[in-house]
Amino acid sequence: MEFSEHIKTANVEDVVLRQPLQPPARGTLCVTGHHLLFSDREECASRQVLLLIRNIDAIEKRLSGSSGTITIKCKDLRVLQLDIPGMERCLNIAHSIETLSCLDRVSEMYPFFYRPPDLSLQDQWGISSPEQHYKQTKELHNSWRLSSVNRDYSVCPSYPQTVIVPKNIDDDVLKKSAKFRQGGRFPVLCYYHRKNGAVIMRSSQPLTGANRKRCWEDEQLLHAVIEGSDKGYIIDTRSSQQAQQNRMAGGGFESKSSYSRWKRLHRQMERGKALQESLIKLVEALGDASHNMDRWLSKLDNSKWLSHVQMALLTAGLLAECVERDGHSVLVHGSEGTDCSLLISTLAQLIMDPCCRSLEGFLALLEREWVQAGHPFQQRCGHSAYSHTRPQQESPVFLLLLDCVWQLWNQFPLALGFSEALLLRLATEAYASDYGTFLCNNHQERWALAVTENTHCLFQALLRPREREYYSNSLHEHTELAIWPSVHPQSLQLWKGFFLRWTQQGRQLQEAQEEIRTMVMTLGKLALS
Amino acid sequence: MEFSEHIKTANVEDVVLRQPLQPPARGTLCVTGHHLLFSDREECASRQVLLLIRNIDAIEKRLSGSSGTITIKCKDLRVLQLDIPGMERCLNIAHSIETLSCLDRVSEMYPFFYRPPDLSLQDQWGISSPEQHYKQTKELHNSWRLSSVNRDYSVCPSYPQTVIVPKNIDDDVLKKSAKFRQGGRFPVLCYYHRKNGAVIMRSSQPLTGANRKRCWEDEQLLHAVIEGSDKGYIIDTRSSQQAQQNRMAGGGFESKSSYSRWKRLHRQMERGKALQESLIKLVEALGDASHNMDRWLSKLDNSKWLSHVQMALLTAGLLAECVERDGHSVLVHGSEGTDCSLLISTLAQLIMDPCCRSLEGFLALLEREWVQAGHPFQQRCGHSAYSHTRPQQESPVFLLLLDCVWQLWNQFPLALGFSEALLLRLATEAYASDYGTFLCNNHQERWALAVTENTHCLFQALLRPREREYYSNSLHEHTELAIWPSVHPQSLQLWKGFFLRWTQQGRQLQEAQEEIRTMVMTLGKLALS
Repeated sequence: MEFSEHIKTANVEDVVLRQPLQPPARGTLCVTGHHLLFSDREECASRQVLLLIRNIDAIEKRLSGSSGTITIKCKDLRVLQLDIPGMERCLNIAHSIETLSCLDRVSEMYPFFYRPPDLSLQDQWGISSPEQHYKQTKELHNSWRLSSVNRDYSVCPSYPQTVIVPKNIDDDVLKKSAKFRQGGRFPVLCYYHRKNGAVIMRSSQPLTGANRKRCWEDEQLLHAVIEGSDKGYIIDTRSSQQAQQNRMAGGGFESKSSYSRWKRLHRQMERGKALQESLIKLVEALGDASHNMDRWLSKLDNSKWLSHVQMALLTAGLLAECVERDGHSVLVHGSEGTDCSLLISTLAQLIMDPCCRSLEGFLALLEREWVQAGHPFQQRCGHSAYSHTRPQQESPVFLLLLDCVWQLWNQFPLALGFSEALLLRLATEAYASDYGTFLCNNHQERWALAVTENTHCLFQALLRPREREYYSNSLHEHTELAIWPSVHPQSLQLWKGFFLRWTQQGRQLQEAQEEIRTMVMTLGKLALS
Repeated sequence: MEFSEHIKTANVEDVVLRQPLQPPARGTLCVTGHHLLFSDREECASRQVLLLIRNIDAIEKRLSGSSGTITIKCKDLRVLQLDIPGMERCLNIAHSIETLSCLDRVSEMYPFFYRPPDLSLQDQWGISSPEQHYKQTKELHNSWRLSSVNRDYSVCPSYPQTVIVPKNIDDDVLKKSAKFRQGGRFPVLCYYHRKNGAVIMRSSQPLTGANRKRCWEDEQLLHAVIEGSDKGYIIDTRSSQQAQQNRMAGGGFESKSSYSRWKRLHRQMERGKALQESLIKLVEALGDASHNMDRWLSKLDNSKWLSHVQMALLTAGLLAECVERDGHSVLVHGSEGTDCSLLISTLAQLIMDPCCRSLEGFLALLEREWVQAGHPFQQRCGHSAYSHTRPQQESPVFLLLLDCVWQLWNQFPLALGFSEALLLRLATEAYASDYGTFLCNNHQERWALAVTENTHCLFQALLRPREREYYSNSLHEHTELAIWPSVHPQSLQLWKGFFLRWTQQGRQLQEAQEEIRTMVMTLGKLALS
């Protein structure tokens, strides 16, 4: 295996492992191509720790005398410490971790090697697709069609092979519209409201540029979306000023004169570097060990993380209002259309549609709106809050989504069919996983690496009977109603389950959840017997 | 009835009631000596609203044309609005509410008139007493005794008739010590640690004054407390500077030279006006309808409420550490010894002692440490956060206690035997109640008004079978271990159940709690059948 060149010391005895909430343990540390394995001397299975090296965000080494200490900061915010006897061994281990955690050849990553006994590579990959979505939504068939214009990914590299578009728009129009949109992301349907027929479309920005270029086909495509209705809305996730600035760089927005029946609403959402820095500041604030309440509240404020949560829920609420209350179709985009657009369309669907709130429905929603819709997971989730590398493409948009979903879960404890544990699991998996689901940046890249043939699908694994039981919300009560979140700052709170996960309090919360779950299981079994 | 002179208009038809989370209702408003009664036209029982006038903290009236609107702000933070036709009627009603809500003759208050069918005035009043506490704690009997030195309340007006003191200290010593302590509050036992024999004592400050007066009997009394041990601790809930300042006004602290075996620790806790203003600022911040996250976090910070919560838990943790971990006895006092001392001794007992964590144990703890120990409920809970009268004796110390208990409950969801609903109920009852428990400032006043003969006891009402079921924590799992709260600012949070009680989110939280409760009940019944 080619990893061996990076591993000078594969085994060290007499290592002390310190991890949160557990007493220190002395044992053997083993470095493999993908894992750190620690087993304590007692050979008691419960004291084995297996850590995916890809989960490591940053390490710090400190040498003193003949031994050294490595502090490992994980992408899921866990912090571990290893006391290693022997300076050279310590340096070797540190070097291996540094190198192995940064390898970015996808085909060498662990999902390509992970072979659990109860899953087969022959299993169907994925749980939803545009085809299935189309098939299941019979009401669509009158005015919408499936298009395979992107079958070879040449029209839009970040779209799946099939997309849903207006029936009377042919593939040539789509191709021209794609040329007029950044990265080829022409408007496609992502949600159809069964009761009023309004839809959510998403795309990237139109490339109007400084000269206010027009594209007749793009206009025609959008026109077809609101046929029979008086108007549609465009929710632009940039401020109007940002949209103007983007015009100077070749991007732009739908002008009133060219898209007369569409009303543009601008909502400025942070993305990219600003969001990454917000997360870094928040995690730094959480690590502040002083007992100063003022300092904590001011650092929390300063990180702006909760403001981003609020803005996302606010914009998603606006989107859902347009569609659910007013019955108007909405096109959502910012610049690239791969981040905030997905964030708010996902949240709006959760708010409106009870089908998206079941465990399976939610996973299918994530698969459609994030994996298939081309959220660049590899770029966005390369590093988390501890890495010293300056963020380039990194941005915790998916984590922000999970946080917003948790706020919904917190405000409507009965309405969602899945548990907080699922959100925590997804937050970990997006950054480091045994599964192939979050590999690569889009379907084309996955196709090139044959990800679906060579790795297992996380979403399917989460729907196996034991996992399904574990990740279900035992208090779930189906409601047909929309769940309108409160976006008052007073109602939003820090997602302790995630951000304080490795503290005493996080453990207490998990125990309580566990208790409720056990109780409901017992109840179910008793009722059946 | 003498109230009638304050009621010029007793009935108004065609009133519109607006209250949180409910559609407006049109009906009849009725003013009685103690209640506002609203019943809607449909005569449907569910739309009757009965509000204790004593619960009203402030009203605002607004006249327009021939009608008027009264906004009623309750001490439990609920805000109601009444649209009343007829200017004169509106003014009359407003005047009645203003007058009746301020009547402060205790013997005219509602508990003296409340006669529920399932309780009898002949029932035993109260659920715990120093005598019972002494009787139940057999380990005490070797070195501690019950003293009736205060049988006629002449030694200490704010103490009960019986107190627990060291066995070898006779009543004359107690009397002299009482003269040396503010308000006569000489050191008495409030907690005995069964495993190590360490105790918590509480008192008021010693009256050393500027001349550093000494009292040999007081020194003897404290000496007897730590007999056989090397030292004890005094936790003074004032800063060392405040304690010094109090000396100039006749108060003081235990000097090292006079109390050589006691080590003094100062922890500055806010009380009185500062605490009242903190609550007012917090409630004002909660009412801010802007959607500005920065503003909210800065106002929350500025109110300092969470800092007070943190300080209380921190000091209680210190107290519990001294007693539970180090096995040292501790005397707690600030100045008067009727507020913060009770707060931290109560919290420390909850942290250490599983018996205090059951529903019954907690109520008995409150009865001993707040009602019998002479927390001046009438003065402290006269007004809540809305009143325009400037706080004099008002101070939400008891509410702060409930908030701290909720933080424990939040951090250890399984450890406490009672539910959040109990804390909410107590928060309401302390300010306005059908029961006599929280009337007056101490036992002497209650005795003078024959409160126990003429009113019903809240704690007993809360232990009736239906109430007991409702107020129990269905997830409770008894643990013998101490529950050490995290006092990191990151772990403490706003008590939404109370402060956002009348919002959509508060309702959702209640529904979820209700769901868990129902499930556990069903489970219990199934298991029994």
